[in-house]
Amino acid sequence: MDPKKRDVFIAEMTRLLGSRSVLHRYEDLLAYECDGYTIHKGLPGAVLFPANTQEVAAAVQYMHRQQIPFIPRGAGTGLSGGATALNGEVLISLARMNKLLEVDYLNRRAVVQPGYINLKLSNSISTKGYYYAPDPSSQASCTIGGNVGENAGGAHCLKYGVTTNHVLGLELVLPNGDIVRLGGVPDAPGYDLLGVLTGSEGTMGIVTEITVRILKKPQGVKTAVALYDDVNDASHAVSDIIAAGIVPAALEMMDNTAIEGVESGNYPVGYPRDLGAVLIVEVDGIEAGLQHQIDQVLEVCRKHNVREVKQAADADERARWWANRKTAFGAMGTISPDYLVQDGVIPRSRLPEVLAEVASISAKYGLRIANVFHAGDGNLHPLILFDSRIPGEKENAVKAGSEVLKACAEVGGSITGEHGVGIEKMEDMRYIFTDEEIRVQLSLREAFNPDNLCNPDKMFPNPARCVEVKHVAAAARP
Amino acid sequence: MDPKKRDVFIAEMTRLLGSRSVLHRYEDLLAYECDGYTIHKGLPGAVLFPANTQEVAAAVQYMHRQQIPFIPRGAGTGLSGGATALNGEVLISLARMNKLLEVDYLNRRAVVQPGYINLKLSNSISTKGYYYAPDPSSQASCTIGGNVGENAGGAHCLKYGVTTNHVLGLELVLPNGDIVRLGGVPDAPGYDLLGVLTGSEGTMGIVTEITVRILKKPQGVKTAVALYDDVNDASHAVSDIIAAGIVPAALEMMDNTAIEGVESGNYPVGYPRDLGAVLIVEVDGIEAGLQHQIDQVLEVCRKHNVREVKQAADADERARWWANRKTAFGAMGTISPDYLVQDGVIPRSRLPEVLAEVASISAKYGLRIANVFHAGDGNLHPLILFDSRIPGEKENAVKAGSEVLKACAEVGGSITGEHGVGIEKMEDMRYIFTDEEIRVQLSLREAFNPDNLCNPDKMFPNPARCVEVKHVAAAARP
Repeated sequence: MDPKKRDVFIAEMTRLLGSRSVLHRYEDLLAYECDGYTIHKGLPGAVLFPANTQEVAAAVQYMHRQQIPFIPRGAGTGLSGGATALNGEVLISLARMNKLLEVDYLNRRAVVQPGYINLKLSNSISTKGYYYAPDPSSQASCTIGGNVGENAGGAHCLKYGVTTNHVLGLELVLPNGDIVRLGGVPDAPGYDLLGVLTGSEGTMGIVTEITVRILKKPQGVKTAVALYDDVNDASHAVSDIIAAGIVPAALEMMDNTAIEGVESGNYPVGYPRDLGAVLIVEVDGIEAGLQHQIDQVLEVCRKHNVREVKQAADADERARWWANRKTAFGAMGTISPDYLVQDGVIPRSRLPEVLAEVASISAKYGLRIANVFHAGDGNLHPLILFDSRIPGEKENAVKAGSEVLKACAEVGGSITGEHGVGIEKMEDMRYIFTDEEIRVQLSLREAFNPDNLCNPDKMFPNPARCVEVKHVAAAARP
Repeated sequence: MDPKKRDVFIAEMTRLLGSRSVLHRYEDLLAYECDGYTIHKGLPGAVLFPANTQEVAAAVQYMHRQQIPFIPRGAGTGLSGGATALNGEVLISLARMNKLLEVDYLNRRAVVQPGYINLKLSNSISTKGYYYAPDPSSQASCTIGGNVGENAGGAHCLKYGVTTNHVLGLELVLPNGDIVRLGGVPDAPGYDLLGVLTGSEGTMGIVTEITVRILKKPQGVKTAVALYDDVNDASHAVSDIIAAGIVPAALEMMDNTAIEGVESGNYPVGYPRDLGAVLIVEVDGIEAGLQHQIDQVLEVCRKHNVREVKQAADADERARWWANRKTAFGAMGTISPDYLVQDGVIPRSRLPEVLAEVASISAKYGLRIANVFHAGDGNLHPLILFDSRIPGEKENAVKAGSEVLKACAEVGGSITGEHGVGIEKMEDMRYIFTDEEIRVQLSLREAFNPDNLCNPDKMFPNPARCVEVKHVAAAARP
């Protein structure tokens, strides 16, 4: 924005939202130069903190009239740069819209504002015996609005599905400032706009209210860990558990380097450091029959050269295992100055060969790669360890990450399971989509976001043949 | 089409597809004047039977160039008129694209052509212990392509979800004849186009290949029926079963008039004709604990003034109960010359009041209404009985149906659970959506189907304020 236009903008936003809801000084903006993906950074033009839907709509209407681009932002825990302002866009933080508006136990739904923290919902309804299923590792800090933007998953999405399976309705401020409601009734007719919005990474509007499904807590939970010398044995155990017809609530795996990380972190549980891999398997549901299920799991695990296999003795032991697993990303900080989290998906049956490919990419770049997986659904999180003080290592980490995603795509997998495309993986979209397919996606964005004002130029590469997709606003941007 | 343009069109299609794949004589077209919704009829301009994706694309490219509107058609079992040519559109029947292309047991997916019959898939993979979950009542004749178009459900969607939860990938011929692939990889990045296409009722293109999830057959199944004098007692039992934390595989209900129908049909099971309602409850899963679950169900059922409750003695008895239930719609033909199937959804907790409202609509129009429900998920199928030979009864049935849907919408429900909007419910969409919300939906259709050539003018009413939605092609249509 040119300085004069910016002054008018700041004055207008201050009038609309109040001075405490508009950050615009350089030192205030610095805290917002990236989200959880730190490879690319950029200073936003301003940060707004609207208090309600009407304020969001008023701010967006103004920016639409003035053709000022903007980006919605939750807690900034995203891992692909979706909330980063690369070109001085205005951030619209939903942090102050953080209320639980309604809980309807009879019809099993809750209505929240987008800035409401994921874990707070489960905590708020726990005493009545309910919980909210999607549980990303960042659930103690990430917001449900951000979860909708990224279609967040979590360890338990193997059985319970990802965010899109739990969103029943949305209130949305369109990029022109109009307010619409999507879903909110069971089986809403028409196109599945809820599905389109969920995972659209803020490119289609700003979600201002979310109705989610809440679930009755399972009667019982049984958890086991299985320790393996060889990561391939663990992979085969994963396949056999699924093949046995068991649907675990969670089926997680960590390899040797990941184990080194978590055992050096704040929540060690005593896994031997020389292990090839550990599996965490959890079953839940009606109490009757549950012990039989976990016994089956233990039996399958034993068939694959297991070193040790055991069931959690009590809720405490289970909680320790999960705390250890859920902090795996952060724990990498104890064994490496920097790390890059990747997020690929593969057909479960291709796990051994993709792991071999990851190992060879690791060797090629001379960078250690720790592997943390939601193994049950083939969602890999390779953690590429590097030291940004060593020239070239950061760039090599980025290249290695892209090569891992290419390897996932080549076996029929995907370049993101739950972290989104953001700015990180825009070019990697070409591993999956033809130009024509990208054009169809862009035409969908056009329908919602015709001026490309709302989180502009994220998610998609600019396909060569896409001349018909007009970037009028992008070209005209001040 | 004017006669000369039509002659050229028929000649061109005959050249592209062969003469046996183009119907155009009046007597041949008569069989295609409606689908399972018989209130509105219309003769198509022609019916094409392409044999593969390339033929679909070639035909569509020609029609796109000539701006000739067209409609994809599966088995014609739809219940809302989605495949009916009201304005002489060309039908593209997928009946000859009826192959099972691939089964991948390891990664649990199957690839089918759109004209492949739903039930054939489960039958084909049954010996290996697998099945395809969505089971609409018409599953012996409906096609998986049609299921994708309507996002079909079925008795077991309470636990297993509807078609959209089982579609992993699509090949699609866009309305301009381009071929694209959507999904097909686990967790495909970008917008959820699979979700948009599923349930888009043929308004966004023609699906030419479908990758679906297949499931391992549950180890065990237990089924019970509970007979009630009072339909409200049955409703309360439904609520209590769900509240107990049980997730039945199916939870079905039929009221007195529906019971009269099924007991007069081809598969009577001996339900007393004076019953107020019957519940069918099924649980499935790991064998251990399953008897305990069905015991819990039986216990809850008994608490609500039940007349009789019993568990199926064997697979035969279970099969008889289901055959009886699945033919409920058709069986209405034995107690009424004509009937109109409705399809509304309500929050489960509002069942008693909506049933009372349905009864009063029945009294108002002097038409009997039988109620068949997927009770567990609040999906009602009121069957409005009428005699088209009596002047005014058909019109009254249509009015009564719309009033039932209004009652559903007024308690926060929906106007369709699984049968689609088609031509039947276009105006009823206003019970759910504002003009602005309809405009957003139409702009999405524009993105895929800019000339409104593909199943034109279905699903949505023409919102008063939607002047910006261009119907250029509709206006220019010959």
